[in-house]
Amino acid sequence: MAYIDLGVDETADPGIRGLLRYRPETGRPLMELAEVLLRGPSTLSRGERELIASYVSGLNDCGYCTNSHGAFAAAQLDEGRPLVEQVRADPSSAPISDKLKALLRIAAATRNSGHDVTPDLIAQAREAGATDAEVHDVVLIAAAFSMFNRYVDALGTLAPEDPAPYEAAAPRIVENGYLA
Amino acid sequence: MAYIDLGVDETADPGIRGLLRYRPETGRPLMELAEVLLRGPSTLSRGERELIASYVSGLNDCGYCTNSHGAFAAAQLDEGRPLVEQVRADPSSAPISDKLKALLRIAAATRNSGHDVTPDLIAQAREAGATDAEVHDVVLIAAAFSMFNRYVDALGTLAPEDPAPYEAAAPRIVENGYLA
Repeated sequence: MAYIDLGVDETADPGIRGLLRYRPETGRPLMELAEVLLRGPSTLSRGERELIASYVSGLNDCGYCTNSHGAFAAAQLDEGRPLVEQVRADPSSAPISDKLKALLRIAAATRNSGHDVTPDLIAQAREAGATDAEVHDVVLIAAAFSMFNRYVDALGTLAPEDPAPYEAAAPRIVENGYLA
Repeated sequence: MAYIDLGVDETADPGIRGLLRYRPETGRPLMELAEVLLRGPSTLSRGERELIASYVSGLNDCGYCTNSHGAFAAAQLDEGRPLVEQVRADPSSAPISDKLKALLRIAAATRNSGHDVTPDLIAQAREAGATDAEVHDVVLIAAAFSMFNRYVDALGTLAPEDPAPYEAAAPRIVENGYLA
């Protein structure tokens, strides 16, 4: 149960969902940001972007976000759940492009500290074919999940361990997105 | 100079300002979030909220955000710049309320990891008079600056060392806010 009274049934609205209901004034821009970053026009697929979000959330040990975005990634990647697990375990050996590996290295560095992203990491991504827009968006996805993960965990919200509720939410997100 | 080509003159638009111009689709919800959290209706003053933002940014060693929000705090607190510096150096000995000290402890814990915010830290804030809404907003301010700080630093944006440009920007923010 959350540390503050959210006025919601957390078993029906776990994780960030109860927080969005508690404070819709902040909830709206937060979901608009998620919608643009994870689902808006991009040369990175929606599945790839959800994969990055889930990977960063795993590094931050945020169960709710790791499982949510892992389920949303699995639902939008041809390789499904096994790829999400491989990336979570070790991106360098996962069957993904060199470009995505380089972008995941930038995401991991950003998660740790903005100061950990070096010109060399940027150069590696460029050499692997990443555009400036892709580098920008991956940095902001990693930075945004450094926010979302803290928001959800610092307020002690409910994070179901059962994968079923996350998988049940995926079709709704895939079809309608974060603003529905 | 930023690691990616922002297409702006960074000496005129340093730090996050160049990023907001580069990608207005993400810039708009980011500034809407800042406006609600730092300037919207709240029982915490605008000066107190900018103080928290600057304090968190200092812990993250983000020069641009520390100086920007430090200048915005100083411009909106009766005690001005000296209080910003005292809080930055040591909140526990700064001349602020026990409630604000307890909220700053929650902000510092959130910055480190969502998992570092304990029921005991929440209880201390409540005993000092903090409401659930204040706890929520301070957690989200600290989480949001965990994002903004990373965004600005991971992309290598310009952070002037001279305090003058930050102080020059303060009256505009104080008067018109983040959406102007």
